[in-house]
Amino acid sequence: MANTYDIAYDLEKQIRESDEYEQLKQAYQAVNEQAEAKKLFDDFRQLQLELQQKQMTGEAISEEEAKSAEQSFQNIQQHKEITALMSAEQRMSLMINDLNQIITKPLQELYGTLEEENK
Amino acid sequence: MANTYDIAYDLEKQIRESDEYEQLKQAYQAVNEQAEAKKLFDDFRQLQLELQQKQMTGEAISEEEAKSAEQSFQNIQQHKEITALMSAEQRMSLMINDLNQIITKPLQELYGTLEEENK
Repeated sequence: MANTYDIAYDLEKQIRESDEYEQLKQAYQAVNEQAEAKKLFDDFRQLQLELQQKQMTGEAISEEEAKSAEQSFQNIQQHKEITALMSAEQRMSLMINDLNQIITKPLQELYGTLEEENK
Repeated sequence: MANTYDIAYDLEKQIRESDEYEQLKQAYQAVNEQAEAKKLFDDFRQLQLELQQKQMTGEAISEEEAKSAEQSFQNIQQHKEITALMSAEQRMSLMINDLNQIITKPLQELYGTLEEENK
């Protein structure tokens, strides 16, 4: 039991020392150091979140909102710090997803196999 | 990089060999071997899922549905195989949550700290 947690801590350390994490940290810092880029990025994230929530609750997204999101996305792409951060986040997210898939494989197998058997 | 994945595979192996996983496997098998318990449990899960989706989309849950869920929950609790499975699932879920918290700590720190700095 303790062993499972020990290995998780090893994995945490490894993630912290990974290129993906180091690059993400630097990219995040770079955006945060530029007030204008930071504001644009925060606004974009906020808008993205609002639209996602609307989609989840089935609320309609107005043409104005869609245009505003498109404009916001074009604006942030003008800042190389932001595009670098978004790339770094995507790489990190891919790694975390990969790791999660590996770790939760026993559960996927358990439920998958038994569902299969009971069809 | 390869190292990160190697450790994730170690962790997967450890989860697969954990008491939590072994107990979950046995509990799931026990429910699946009893047609009546299996049907009750599947129906309960289905109902639970439907109510969760309604909650997420802000749709009202009728009194009838609430009663039906309550009844379904009382029914499944009569089956010791089902209560054992639900306990085993909860223990497994606690472990996976713990592991996820450990692994994603570098990310929580990164975003948490920088958000703090920018307040």
